[in-house]
Amino acid sequence: MLFYALFRNDPRTVAVRAGAPLFRQGDPADLMYVLIKGEGRIVIGEREVERFGVGDIVGEMALIDREPRSATVEAVTDCEFVCVDAKRFKFLVAETPGFALGVMTAMARRLRNADKLIG
Amino acid sequence: MLFYALFRNDPRTVAVRAGAPLFRQGDPADLMYVLIKGEGRIVIGEREVERFGVGDIVGEMALIDREPRSATVEAVTDCEFVCVDAKRFKFLVAETPGFALGVMTAMARRLRNADKLIG
Repeated sequence: MLFYALFRNDPRTVAVRAGAPLFRQGDPADLMYVLIKGEGRIVIGEREVERFGVGDIVGEMALIDREPRSATVEAVTDCEFVCVDAKRFKFLVAETPGFALGVMTAMARRLRNADKLIG
Repeated sequence: MLFYALFRNDPRTVAVRAGAPLFRQGDPADLMYVLIKGEGRIVIGEREVERFGVGDIVGEMALIDREPRSATVEAVTDCEFVCVDAKRFKFLVAETPGFALGVMTAMARRLRNADKLIG
C-alpha cells in the first residue's frame, strides 16, 4: 500500500462512475493515477486484461514516454483517483527510491500478465 | 545509450553465441543484463516478440519481483552482456534517478509492444 499511503490525502482527485472510462486507448496523456477508492479494469480492444484495486496505479507510462494511452481504463465500481503529473512523478522518482521501485513492480506485474496473454 | 555508458566497462560479462539462449522462460532468475555487443531477441512460447540491440536491458523484472523468467532471451548474433545483480540495481535506482527512469522507459516500451500484440 505504498501508493495509497503516499497519495491518499492528495487534494487533486477525479471521480469516475461505475462503467465510465477514466481514459481510452489512443488518448493523449499527461497524468498517472492512483486508485484510492473502488475497483477498476484495464481493457485492450474488447479484452479485459486486468482488474485493479485501491493503492494500484494506472497510466504511469504516459509520464515516462509521453505516448498516447496504450489501453482503456474503466471504473468497475464508483472510483476515486488521485492525479499525479510529470513534475511530481519525477520528483518522487528522484527523492523516494521506494516510489521508483513501486512503479517498476507495478509495471513488472503488468508485463508478466501481458506475457501470459501472448504466450 | 544511458545503459551502455554506465556498464560498457563493467568486468562482469557473459558471452552468448548466435542462436544460443541467455536464459529461458521459467528459469529462476537473479540478474539483469545489459547488451554491450551484438543483437538479441525475446521469445515467448514460439513467438518472437522483440529484437533488441546494444545498450538495451533484459531480465530487469527478476531484480524487481524475484519471479522466474517470463520470456526466453536468445542471441541473434554473437552477444556480450554485462550482468547486474540486485544489490547494484538497487544502489543505482537509489543514487541515479536517470537509471530508474531508464529502466521504466525500457519497461514501458516493452509493455506497449505487448499491448499491441494483445490488442
